[in-house]
Amino acid sequence: MYLERINKPNDIKKIPREGLDVLAQEIREFLIETISETGGHLAANLGAVELTMALHLVMDFPDDKLIWDVGHQSYTHKILTGRKSEFNTLRKFHGLAGFPKTKESDCDAFNTGHSSTSISAGLGMAVARTLQGKNNTVISVIGDGSLTGGMAYEAINNAAKAQTPFIIVLNDNNMSISENVGGVSSYLNKIRTTEAYLELKEDVKNKLKTVPRGKSMIHRIQNVKSGFKQLVLPGMMFENMGLTYLGPVNGHDIAAMEKVLREAKRCKTPVLVHVLTHKGRGYVPAERHPARFHGAEPFDIETGLPLKKRTTPNYTDIFSTVMCKLGDSNPNVVAITAAMPDGTGLKRFRNMYPDRFFDVGIAEQHAVTFAAGLASSGLRPVVAIYSSFLQRAYDQILHDVCIQKLPVVFAIDRAGLVGSDGETHQGIFDLSYLSEIPNLTVMAPKNKWELADMLRYAVQYDGPIALRYPRGQAFEGLYEMRPAIEYGKSEWLYEESEICLIAVGSMVKIALKAKELLEAEGHKVSVVNARFVKPIDEEMVAKAAKKHKYVVTLEENVLSGGYGENVREYFDTLSTRAKLLNIAIPDCFVEHGKVDELLEELNMDAKGITNRVLEWMK
Amino acid sequence: MYLERINKPNDIKKIPREGLDVLAQEIREFLIETISETGGHLAANLGAVELTMALHLVMDFPDDKLIWDVGHQSYTHKILTGRKSEFNTLRKFHGLAGFPKTKESDCDAFNTGHSSTSISAGLGMAVARTLQGKNNTVISVIGDGSLTGGMAYEAINNAAKAQTPFIIVLNDNNMSISENVGGVSSYLNKIRTTEAYLELKEDVKNKLKTVPRGKSMIHRIQNVKSGFKQLVLPGMMFENMGLTYLGPVNGHDIAAMEKVLREAKRCKTPVLVHVLTHKGRGYVPAERHPARFHGAEPFDIETGLPLKKRTTPNYTDIFSTVMCKLGDSNPNVVAITAAMPDGTGLKRFRNMYPDRFFDVGIAEQHAVTFAAGLASSGLRPVVAIYSSFLQRAYDQILHDVCIQKLPVVFAIDRAGLVGSDGETHQGIFDLSYLSEIPNLTVMAPKNKWELADMLRYAVQYDGPIALRYPRGQAFEGLYEMRPAIEYGKSEWLYEESEICLIAVGSMVKIALKAKELLEAEGHKVSVVNARFVKPIDEEMVAKAAKKHKYVVTLEENVLSGGYGENVREYFDTLSTRAKLLNIAIPDCFVEHGKVDELLEELNMDAKGITNRVLEWMK
Repeated sequence: MYLERINKPNDIKKIPREGLDVLAQEIREFLIETISETGGHLAANLGAVELTMALHLVMDFPDDKLIWDVGHQSYTHKILTGRKSEFNTLRKFHGLAGFPKTKESDCDAFNTGHSSTSISAGLGMAVARTLQGKNNTVISVIGDGSLTGGMAYEAINNAAKAQTPFIIVLNDNNMSISENVGGVSSYLNKIRTTEAYLELKEDVKNKLKTVPRGKSMIHRIQNVKSGFKQLVLPGMMFENMGLTYLGPVNGHDIAAMEKVLREAKRCKTPVLVHVLTHKGRGYVPAERHPARFHGAEPFDIETGLPLKKRTTPNYTDIFSTVMCKLGDSNPNVVAITAAMPDGTGLKRFRNMYPDRFFDVGIAEQHAVTFAAGLASSGLRPVVAIYSSFLQRAYDQILHDVCIQKLPVVFAIDRAGLVGSDGETHQGIFDLSYLSEIPNLTVMAPKNKWELADMLRYAVQYDGPIALRYPRGQAFEGLYEMRPAIEYGKSEWLYEESEICLIAVGSMVKIALKAKELLEAEGHKVSVVNARFVKPIDEEMVAKAAKKHKYVVTLEENVLSGGYGENVREYFDTLSTRAKLLNIAIPDCFVEHGKVDELLEELNMDAKGITNRVLEWMK
Repeated sequence: MYLERINKPNDIKKIPREGLDVLAQEIREFLIETISETGGHLAANLGAVELTMALHLVMDFPDDKLIWDVGHQSYTHKILTGRKSEFNTLRKFHGLAGFPKTKESDCDAFNTGHSSTSISAGLGMAVARTLQGKNNTVISVIGDGSLTGGMAYEAINNAAKAQTPFIIVLNDNNMSISENVGGVSSYLNKIRTTEAYLELKEDVKNKLKTVPRGKSMIHRIQNVKSGFKQLVLPGMMFENMGLTYLGPVNGHDIAAMEKVLREAKRCKTPVLVHVLTHKGRGYVPAERHPARFHGAEPFDIETGLPLKKRTTPNYTDIFSTVMCKLGDSNPNVVAITAAMPDGTGLKRFRNMYPDRFFDVGIAEQHAVTFAAGLASSGLRPVVAIYSSFLQRAYDQILHDVCIQKLPVVFAIDRAGLVGSDGETHQGIFDLSYLSEIPNLTVMAPKNKWELADMLRYAVQYDGPIALRYPRGQAFEGLYEMRPAIEYGKSEWLYEESEICLIAVGSMVKIALKAKELLEAEGHKVSVVNARFVKPIDEEMVAKAAKKHKYVVTLEENVLSGGYGENVREYFDTLSTRAKLLNIAIPDCFVEHGKVDELLEELNMDAKGITNRVLEWMK
C-alpha cells in the first residue's frame, strides 16, 4: 500500500518510480470507495489522478502555486496534501470541502468553484512572484470545458503579453480527441519540446525555397500577422494568441507528463501544456456515463447505481416537463443552457426540439445577450442558468435585456442554499441582484405546480422576467391552492390575525411549519406566498400591516437588497402600528453542508424562525 | 451637396457611384462641425464613415439588422437613417442619443453601450431569422478593442457552430496594422474571396509532395486538429475558431468594402470580414490624438483644443495624483485598468511604474480575478474601473475576491449619474451590487481631499474595499473638515436638530445646499457625510434617530439594495419616534443629459430634495 505512505505534502516524491502506477490505482480505488459513500465529483477526479500526481512530482508545496479551475477535480490533490483521513467528511457540514479552500491547506493556492477563473488568478500570482523577485512555479489547471468561458480567453490574451514564467495545463477530456491522433500527437510533442521544432520550421521553409514560386509563398506567409508559426502544429489557436504550446500529451502517462511539465518549467514565458485525459478513467460506470458521475450521489460500486432511489420529482424535473410542453404549444419558445443540459433538465427539450435548443458552453454572458438577440426578433427564449452562475451575466441582464425590456425568461435553478457544493454555489444573492434592475419581474414558486404555472406565465409575459427555484425535491404540498398567476399579486394561504408570515418561494413550506409551531405557543398566524418578489405586492403588504401586529418576511437570500428590505421600504410608508421583521440570510458566505443543517445553523428552519419571532415579539 | 439628398434610410443608394467619396467627405465635415459644438465620440466615427456607407449600400433597412458594438461609432449610421437634422441635440437631454437606440429608429436593431455584446446579439438575430424562415442579413460590427472582451470570444465560439448566415465585421483600427502589410493583404484578400484560395492551398501541398520528406510533412499537417487551413493566411485565429475569414480590406475604400461585403452575404455560414480603418481619419488633431477625441468635449475646429479650459480638477485627476504618490511610498501597490489608462487617470502611474501597471484590455472579469491573484500573493492591487463597466465583474468580485477576503481596492470612477452617455453608462447600481456582497467594505468621498484620504486608507486596509466617486469636477468645499478616516465611521458635518440629512459621497454637496434651502424655510438641519456605505455606521444612525424628528438619506444610486434601504433595516430596530425618508434614484434607467438636468428631473437636486422633504414632513 503506497497510499499509506502519503500523509503530508511532497510525500509522493518518496514513492519509488515503479510504484507510481500502483499508487494511481490505489488513489482511484480510494476515490471510488469514498465517493460511493459521501457522494461527490467522481468522473473528473478519476480523470485527473495521474495528472495530479505528475504535478506533485514536479512542484514543491506550498511554495509552488497550483490553481484548479472550478476545483471539483482537486480530490487527488487533497489526498496528496495530507487530507486523506478527512475524506469521510467530504462535502459534509464542517467537513472537507469539495473544492480547494485556502483555509483548509496552504497547498490550496486559491479558492475556486465557478469556471474559467484559474488563468486570471494564476497569472496574477506569476506576475506578483516575478515582481517580488521570487522564483516559485505557478500552474493553473483548466479543463477544455472551462475554456469556453470568456474570461479564460481574456486571461490567455493577457498571459501572452506577460514576460514571466507561467504554466497553463489544459486538461482536455473531450471525447472527440481520441487515441487515433495519438501517434502524430506524441511525435509532434517530442519534436515540439526539443529544438527539433525550429528545425522542422526551417525544413519546410527550405523545401519551399527549392520549388518554383516557393519563395514568394514564403514571403507571403512571413508577412502575414502571425507569421510562420502557423505552419505545422496543433494548438495553433494558442500559438496565435501568443502562448507557447506543448503537447498534446497522454494524461494517464505519469512519466510523459513529468517530462513535459519539467520542459514547461524551463520556459521563461507563459506556456500551455495540452494534456489528454479520460473522464471517469478506471471505473466503467463513470467512463460510460461521465455526466451522471459529474456530481454523484452515493452509489453502489458494483452497479454504479445511486443508493437512494428518488421517489419524488425535484424542481428541475418539473421545469423539464413543462418546457417540453411549452415547446409543443408555442413554436416561439427556445431554450438556452450554459453547458448544463442535464443539470437544468433541458436535455429532453433538446431531444424534442433540437433546432430550438442552444447549449452555448460555459458562457453565461453570451447566453444572456444571445437570448436578447433572439427575443428582439420575436422569439421567447428561456435561459436556464443556476443562480450562482447567473452572477456572471449580471451586466448582460441589466444592459442587454432589461434596458430594452426584451421578453427573456430567466429560469434560475439552484436558487437559495444548495448544500454540499458550498459557498461558491449558494444561490443566495439573486433576489438582490435581480431586484435592483429596472424593468425586471422576479417570481418564486411555492411548490411544483406553481413552478409550472409561473413558467407558463413567464413565456407569455411581454418583458424580462425571472423565476427562481431551489435545488432538490419539489414541495408537493398545497396542491389544492392553485389560483391563476396574476401580475404582481401574492397569494394568501391562511388568513388569521396577530402574526403574518410572508414567505418567498422555498420558504413557504418552512413558513407552514413555523405557523404550526407558533400556533402551538398560542399565536394566530397568517401565511402569504409572496409569488412576486418584484414588484412588491403593495396591496398585500398594506393588508398584512393592517390586520396583524407582527409581519415577518422570509427569504432564502441575503438581507441586503432582498425581498424583506424592499417590503420594508413600502411598509414604512404605511400608517400602521404593526412591526416588521425581515428574516433572511445574514451578511456572510455560507459553507457546505446539507440544506437542512445550514438552515438550522442560520436559524432559518421552522424552529429557528419560531424562536426568532417569539423573541422579537417580546 | 450629396448630404442634402440623404433624408431617410436607403437614400444613399440613389447617390451616383462617383459621388460617394464626396459624400464621405461631407459626412466627415458634418461630424467635425457638429461634434465640435455638442461634444461626442469623434475619432471612432471619423474612422467608420466609409465602412458605414458600404454597409448601407449592401444592406436594406430596416429589414436587415445592423448591430454596432459599443455603439459610439454609429453617428454616420444615424445620419444615413434620417436623423441628420437632430444632430444639434446630440447627447443632450431629450435629444439624440450618442449610442444606438431601438426606440429612436427601427434601423437601430439593438441598444449598445458596453463593449463586446454585438456578436452575441447578432448571432441571436441570425439564428432567429433562420428559425423563422426569413432571409434578411444580420451584421455585427465590432472593433478590435472590443474583441479583447471575453464575451466576444464566447460569441465567436458559438457563431462557429451556427449553420446560418451571419456577418461579423471586425473594424480594426489598431495602429500596428499599418500600410506596409497592405500589399500582401489586398493580394491575399483577392485570392481569399475567390476560388484561388483553395488553389493556393493545393499549390503548397503539391509543392511539398515533390520534395523529400514533404509527404510526411503534409501527412502530419493534415492530421492535426485544425488541419491544412492554417497554412497560409492571416486571421488564422478566427479560422481556427471555425469562422470563415475575409480580408483584410481597406476600410476607407468604399468599393473594396462593398465587394467583400457582398461576398460575405453569399456565405451560408458565419463569416468574419476584417476591415482596416484609421481612427480620427480626415481630421488631423483626431488622427494625432485619437484617445483625446474618443469622447470629446466641444472643441475649436482650427486647433482641436477644447473650448472650455478646465480650471478645477476632477476626481480622476485626484485619483491619478494620489496613485502616483502611493506608488512611490508603497512598493506593493499595483494598478489595473481595463483599457482605460486615460479615462481612469492611471496613465501617469503607468509612466512612473510601468512594471506595476497592467492594462488588461476591455476585460473587467479578468481584471478583477487577476487582481485577486496579485492580492493573494501579498500585493495591493488597485482596480480602477468605471461603475457601470464593473457590473461585468460582479461575480468575480463576489466569488474570487470577497469569499477569500483578499485585499483588492476597487477605485470606481463614473459612479452615480454620468450624463451624456446615458442609460448604459449611468453608475447607479454599484452601491446595491456591492453592498449585498459579504466581506466587502464600500466608501464614497464627499470631496477631493476625502477621495485622497480614502484611497490611502484603502491600500492599507486588509480586505476587499471599494471607493466610488463621480464623473466630473471634484467638490472642493469643506476643506477644513478632514478628520482621519476611521473604519465604518461617518462624519458629522453639521449638528443641529429636527432634520438630519445623511448623504453619500456626491450627495454631500447637494445636501449642503438643501440645508440652506430648508433653513430658509425655518428648519434646523444637520448634515452627515456617510463615508462608509457598508458597513452602516449604526452609532451615527442611532444618534440621528435620537436627536432628530426627521432623518433623510441621500444617494446617487437606485433605491433597491442601496444605502437608504440598508440604513432603514437598522433604523427600524431602534426605539425612536423619528421618521426616515430614503431619497435615491427610482426604479428606472436614466437617459442622457447633463447631470444637473438629470438630478433636477429626478427631484434629486437641492430644490427637489427640499420640496420632497417639506412635502414628506407634512
